[in-house]
Amino acid sequence: MQYPWPYTKLDPEVTRRIAHDNYFGGACAYGASSAIIHQLRDKIGYPYTILPADMFKYGEGGAVGWGTLCGALNGAAAVITLVAGDKYHQLVDEMIGWYTVYPFPSDKSNQYAQDGTFKEYKVQKELPKNVSGSPLCHVSVTRWCKETGYASGSPERSERCARLTGDTAAHAVELLNKLQAGQVVSKFELDETTEECRTCHAKGKDFEIGGWTRGKLKCTNCHEPHENPFK
Amino acid sequence: MQYPWPYTKLDPEVTRRIAHDNYFGGACAYGASSAIIHQLRDKIGYPYTILPADMFKYGEGGAVGWGTLCGALNGAAAVITLVAGDKYHQLVDEMIGWYTVYPFPSDKSNQYAQDGTFKEYKVQKELPKNVSGSPLCHVSVTRWCKETGYASGSPERSERCARLTGDTAAHAVELLNKLQAGQVVSKFELDETTEECRTCHAKGKDFEIGGWTRGKLKCTNCHEPHENPFK
Repeated sequence: MQYPWPYTKLDPEVTRRIAHDNYFGGACAYGASSAIIHQLRDKIGYPYTILPADMFKYGEGGAVGWGTLCGALNGAAAVITLVAGDKYHQLVDEMIGWYTVYPFPSDKSNQYAQDGTFKEYKVQKELPKNVSGSPLCHVSVTRWCKETGYASGSPERSERCARLTGDTAAHAVELLNKLQAGQVVSKFELDETTEECRTCHAKGKDFEIGGWTRGKLKCTNCHEPHENPFK
Repeated sequence: MQYPWPYTKLDPEVTRRIAHDNYFGGACAYGASSAIIHQLRDKIGYPYTILPADMFKYGEGGAVGWGTLCGALNGAAAVITLVAGDKYHQLVDEMIGWYTVYPFPSDKSNQYAQDGTFKEYKVQKELPKNVSGSPLCHVSVTRWCKETGYASGSPERSERCARLTGDTAAHAVELLNKLQAGQVVSKFELDETTEECRTCHAKGKDFEIGGWTRGKLKCTNCHEPHENPFK
């Protein structure tokens, strides 16, 4: 089968519901990927009929519970790359960046839980929102728990991640719809502090000035800022 | 197509070479996944003939350069999950744990680079080893660079990640071969310090004692240890 695979416009709201509900059938990475794959299976058929979304189950909890990349992002990113071809980099980068600044769960997910649009759930009540500041499961879950007072093993935290899975899959579909329609996909801009750190501390050729690292994670999540000698 | 997909025993050394060389055709996640998928395509045929390893390209640099989950782990984990069925959790957990304590690049990868077994490369010389202590690309690359003095944008760092991709794919195949042969796959044990932290700070029901987080990342990579009040 030729790469990339065919895509047809999907409804973000249907995707939000399926991804949320499928979270309870195989967690975050399965929820996000299966929502898109199963819809394309219904609308396009082959080759989606042979692709098992089960293969993304390992993404749960940031890869079998290790707390690395959020599984909703991981599962959605795989499907984006499958259908976006050489445009995958821009779309996945935008999705990850969006995730780090978006207050989850969305109003729509909170509403769908309360009004019964979602069919599977741990709790139906409105859940408090927060911004994770990171695509890492560990950081995303920890900050939400500490800001809301819910334990990480609580039904509310699980439901929060289900709603976040719906929100992330819906956003992925919005990006793919834009790509297919030939519309511009916005480019995510890192925050000023991280960009300033990255003027020295990024993938670079010069070890001496700090070119011994890589990544776009927010530096101050784990590191103390230091005086910039070049400022 | 029924999940899980069929598997047949692969040669870890052939896998190490293909994954290393394919790194230069699509980076770490593509290198690791394509090495396994393309061999299964040759040996089994359908359905591997229709699965594009290109769909894992987004994993590079810890997901389009964000520095989260190492792409070699991400790509290999997807293929493990595709063929291991309900045993994926144990195998992927073991692989990630192994990665955090393994001194990359392996002697074999260093040897294959020097003796011309690898066909694609940035540099052929022996490269210094280190243990990353983390499955995160950001930490893995940064520590190797700081311990060796090579810049993150250097040919040596790129070659190091190519050899690590070969080593990780070879390990994934060793695990799958064991699973297929009905042999016991060892269970990765976290270090004592992290396990002690996790007695309170893990996915838990009790917020008050510290059950507001999740993950298996080494706590002291980013956090200062505190006095354990229960000790």
